[in-house]
Amino acid sequence: MKLMEELAPKGLQGVYVDKTEIATTDSTGNLVYRGYRVVEIADRLSFEEIAYLLVYSRLPNREETDEFRKFLIENSKLPGYVVKIISAMKGMNIMDILRTSVSALTVSGRDEKSLLSLAAKFPAIVNLAGDGPDPDKAPTGSFSERFYYFMTGRDDQKNAGLLEKILIMYMEHEFNASTFALRVTASTLADPACAFTSALATLKGPLHGGANSEVLKFLLGLKSQDEVRRYVDDTLAKKEKLMGFGHRVYKDRDPRAQYIKGLLLRYFSDREVVRNAVFMEEYVWEKKNLAANVDFYGALYMYLLGIDEKYYLPVFACSRVFGWVAHYIEQQSNNKLIRPLALYTGKKDQKI
Amino acid sequence: MKLMEELAPKGLQGVYVDKTEIATTDSTGNLVYRGYRVVEIADRLSFEEIAYLLVYSRLPNREETDEFRKFLIENSKLPGYVVKIISAMKGMNIMDILRTSVSALTVSGRDEKSLLSLAAKFPAIVNLAGDGPDPDKAPTGSFSERFYYFMTGRDDQKNAGLLEKILIMYMEHEFNASTFALRVTASTLADPACAFTSALATLKGPLHGGANSEVLKFLLGLKSQDEVRRYVDDTLAKKEKLMGFGHRVYKDRDPRAQYIKGLLLRYFSDREVVRNAVFMEEYVWEKKNLAANVDFYGALYMYLLGIDEKYYLPVFACSRVFGWVAHYIEQQSNNKLIRPLALYTGKKDQKI
Repeated sequence: MKLMEELAPKGLQGVYVDKTEIATTDSTGNLVYRGYRVVEIADRLSFEEIAYLLVYSRLPNREETDEFRKFLIENSKLPGYVVKIISAMKGMNIMDILRTSVSALTVSGRDEKSLLSLAAKFPAIVNLAGDGPDPDKAPTGSFSERFYYFMTGRDDQKNAGLLEKILIMYMEHEFNASTFALRVTASTLADPACAFTSALATLKGPLHGGANSEVLKFLLGLKSQDEVRRYVDDTLAKKEKLMGFGHRVYKDRDPRAQYIKGLLLRYFSDREVVRNAVFMEEYVWEKKNLAANVDFYGALYMYLLGIDEKYYLPVFACSRVFGWVAHYIEQQSNNKLIRPLALYTGKKDQKI
Repeated sequence: MKLMEELAPKGLQGVYVDKTEIATTDSTGNLVYRGYRVVEIADRLSFEEIAYLLVYSRLPNREETDEFRKFLIENSKLPGYVVKIISAMKGMNIMDILRTSVSALTVSGRDEKSLLSLAAKFPAIVNLAGDGPDPDKAPTGSFSERFYYFMTGRDDQKNAGLLEKILIMYMEHEFNASTFALRVTASTLADPACAFTSALATLKGPLHGGANSEVLKFLLGLKSQDEVRRYVDDTLAKKEKLMGFGHRVYKDRDPRAQYIKGLLLRYFSDREVVRNAVFMEEYVWEKKNLAANVDFYGALYMYLLGIDEKYYLPVFACSRVFGWVAHYIEQQSNNKLIRPLALYTGKKDQKI
């Protein structure tokens, strides 16, 4: 029997539970995918190239990129019974429909292509679940162009290109809660649909992805720096959580948030809400040493791209699934059942 | 940065990740629910009483038991859109349908009753997914009587009483993989349907619940002790996994397996397959020091109760969900996001 004091830190905070070769945060506080700094490749590579990099552990050449883009389009078609499921859930939360639809999908293989064929269906499910425009009329260009159309009905290369940047930021983040849940599920040798379902179930929680649309709710209501100050002071006084601030890994600075902030200042600096958001970031840091996370600027960014709030978390999911593909493969390649212990502190020797 | 040597044991084996007051294995190797030895209460209490104990942390009186039984019956009705989802998935694996249906269910609250109203629907989903008999004609007696009818179409108190014993054995087992996945999901403050979906996705893996029908496949084919010996020798020589043997926690003796074995010897000792199974348990222990787990005798037991193989894992799920209810409540009562770290061993300083 182990002793009380050997209990792991609550929430496994700071505990390295396994190795990974997929992503990390380097000594400069930058997020790194397969050895590349994300903020550097986001400026120069496409979503498809970076998704390929995550899954196959190397950058594709031009031919491979084209093939990969086509593969994602060709595999986006939903089977009839899944269309029926989505229709039965009409009007419900898109994340609930996405999770349920992915749960219903089955794939025979556990190789990269089988997993990617599931990932390719995520935007199509979101399109149908959100009552979006006819997918058959979508542009046949990049993943981002199609996805932007799926949500807005517009074929807009500029906005799609901006959407692409946040998709790249959201793609992968080592053992975050949804990816860790995916790895627990995968460690039982459950099939890919099970593993993605588990990850989607976990992503929805407000302490993980599920808060990203909350940020907008207050941000749009704050009309001046005074109102920002008052809102922050009130929230902190009530000891409530400030949505969009704080992160388990990034204590000082979330590199993804800073990257999106840069884009906001570049493309939307004339908007008062952007200036108020930047002020709020500074004010919260000054008052509480809490850093803005990717959801803080991400939500505002998607709002300014004309994307409806109901899609914010689904956007996260449609991007993060490529990281999940990589983690499923990595978990299977060197698997051991993830089955910890619990320290019992309950009643003893009870008799009827 | 932490050092390499601080990597937690692979699969979190032996790591106490949190406290629990729900269940444990005591110093005598016995499984204990809320302080009561399971093998003792299984002989004297009903499924409903023990489920109540797990969830509310005390045994119910007669009135509370009756009320609880009624609550489970009254809340078993499925909403129309879930019936449509099940019908869209007709003929698919029952666990896939169960997971997908639970994913589609929504509950507003996070209290015991809200969670139990979800748990109450599991057998009804299994009944419909398995193309079982008309649920409206089910006996209105105990949970086990109804559930036995749901799977077999028979109102058989004796067999239902025997089914009840294995349901009690399966009900709870601290931080097994599916329960741990549920707690990871719940730790993001995701809703109960999300948490149960995650658990169901994980339960299906062959290294967790998903192997219990595999056991029968070989057991029924072995006609003599010689054939048992040859099968075990061959499987071990090929270094393949012997389904139904070994367990992360029970190295010497799985108390649940021993309890079910006792029932097999008491009620089905005239069957050759029971004698061969007992011989196999002894032979595998002698050759390899691997103990038979609950799935080994459980599968045979359900077979002899006339339950179709397709229901074995769903039986496990319909029982274990009451443990999951207790764990969801416990996780929420003292929550911290479960978000570990990964030790990065991949490429560095890559440039395009």
